Amino acid sequence: MKLAGTGMLASAITPVFGADGEQDKRTKARTKEKSPDSFGIGIAGYTFFQLPLEKAIEIMIKVGVTNLSLKDNYLPMNSNQEKITSVMEAFKVARINVYTLGVIYMKSEQAVDQAFEYARMAGVKMIVGAPDYNLIPLVEKKVKEYDMKIAIHNHGPDNPLFPNATDIWNNIKDMDPRMGICLDIGHTTRDGQDPCIDAERYAKRIFDIHIKDVTLATKDGKTIEMGRGIINIPEFVSSLRKIKYAGMCSLEYEKDMKDPALLQAGIAESIGYFKGVMAF
Amino acid sequence: MKLAGTGMLASAITPVFGADGEQDKRTKARTKEKSPDSFGIGIAGYTFFQLPLEKAIEIMIKVGVTNLSLKDNYLPMNSNQEKITSVMEAFKVARINVYTLGVIYMKSEQAVDQAFEYARMAGVKMIVGAPDYNLIPLVEKKVKEYDMKIAIHNHGPDNPLFPNATDIWNNIKDMDPRMGICLDIGHTTRDGQDPCIDAERYAKRIFDIHIKDVTLATKDGKTIEMGRGIINIPEFVSSLRKIKYAGMCSLEYEKDMKDPALLQAGIAESIGYFKGVMAF
Repeated sequence: MKLAGTGMLASAITPVFGADGEQDKRTKARTKEKSPDSFGIGIAGYTFFQLPLEKAIEIMIKVGVTNLSLKDNYLPMNSNQEKITSVMEAFKVARINVYTLGVIYMKSEQAVDQAFEYARMAGVKMIVGAPDYNLIPLVEKKVKEYDMKIAIHNHGPDNPLFPNATDIWNNIKDMDPRMGICLDIGHTTRDGQDPCIDAERYAKRIFDIHIKDVTLATKDGKTIEMGRGIINIPEFVSSLRKIKYAGMCSLEYEKDMKDPALLQAGIAESIGYFKGVMAF
Repeated sequence: MKLAGTGMLASAITPVFGADGEQDKRTKARTKEKSPDSFGIGIAGYTFFQLPLEKAIEIMIKVGVTNLSLKDNYLPMNSNQEKITSVMEAFKVARINVYTLGVIYMKSEQAVDQAFEYARMAGVKMIVGAPDYNLIPLVEKKVKEYDMKIAIHNHGPDNPLFPNATDIWNNIKDMDPRMGICLDIGHTTRDGQDPCIDAERYAKRIFDIHIKDVTLATKDGKTIEMGRGIINIPEFVSSLRKIKYAGMCSLEYEKDMKDPALLQAGIAESIGYFKGVMAF
């Protein structure tokens, strides 16, 4: 909210100089709101992989982020309905919106079955996943059966499974339109690709985004506080506006994961940076 | 650094598609660096008023800010040269640049004498201060004698002494050009003034800036994480660019001051936000 509650503020501003109109004019221009972006900010659950659930909630409240992509460290894949309801309720009470589950790796038909049942029981409408290539047709069958989206996650040069968005696209482009991409801009960059180009090129299948910054555009690149690395975040936000992206941008912060205070500060700086970029 | 070390990155990016030139063209556009701003980022020492010096240094290192406006909680006004040298050395070892001292309140001639001696012994070129109105002529004399700038700090509706930049300007505008303003954008806003207008109107005498965000444009306004309050930071950065401001923007974060982890996170989010705004 920028100089908002504008009526209040406009009346609170007493012109310093005479009735030359300058201040009134300037103030009015400045109180004009930037229209909000169509995309939101979240956190990708792997960020909290080393912390107890209560600490994850505490950090999300501190940094003021209310959307979470929940990883299975707080909700094992074999959980029953009771367990799932109880964990989802813990986030709901904290006013945190679990908008998806994942990243869920699927290495067998049973794992695909389980993933969709798990997501159904949790009441989400999308899975972020990485099924083995040979399981993609089964995943598509499940997507239709459950009316649930899947956003396949790219993992860069670390993993032969879906190194980049182009590989995901090539595998799903002729499939059900609920088959999509979770574009991880860090792994995209580490794989030598440009996240802006991938976002724009595959726009209609980008269902979720993991935001982060990295130190290098190679396999050796590591997560760093957003704004300190090599990814051009302002350009990326411009691309998201261009394609009218309407999903989440969830921070996946893979640094200082075992130290709650440092992790919290790194998340805070990164979220602050992304909000600052979005403010323009 | 945005997609910098551009030679490295350009060579690391392998075009995904054929030789249509699109990716090459886009990548080149994207690797173009934004020219750096003429102003820098610092922290105003009052932020650390409740913490031991070692913790302040630890937080500055974590958030990656290297410029400090040092408050007297770590360096009492009556310190001798030995004490001053020792404290300044602690920051130097941590690669922190103490670019000014303050805010120093001056309520007597002795206090003015002491402030300038204190700053001389510390080796800084500027004091951030708030002398009583009747002492301003003596301060000007000292400014000439020591060849030292003073940036007078505005404190909004809390304090009848210098409520806003206009009041400071009216008191110093005909004095030595080394007599200037430390524009506190939070107190400016809480006083019902517009920091953008004040920055532009008094540009040639703005020597230092305390950045922050506040909840309300009245006396009841409190510091909040930057980006969450009512101050239009993008507009303010635009004003600084317009006037080619070449000093520091030092965050004064007056929330959670007794809780190092929360304070660190609030500083990190605020600095991240300001950097994100500057990235455009």
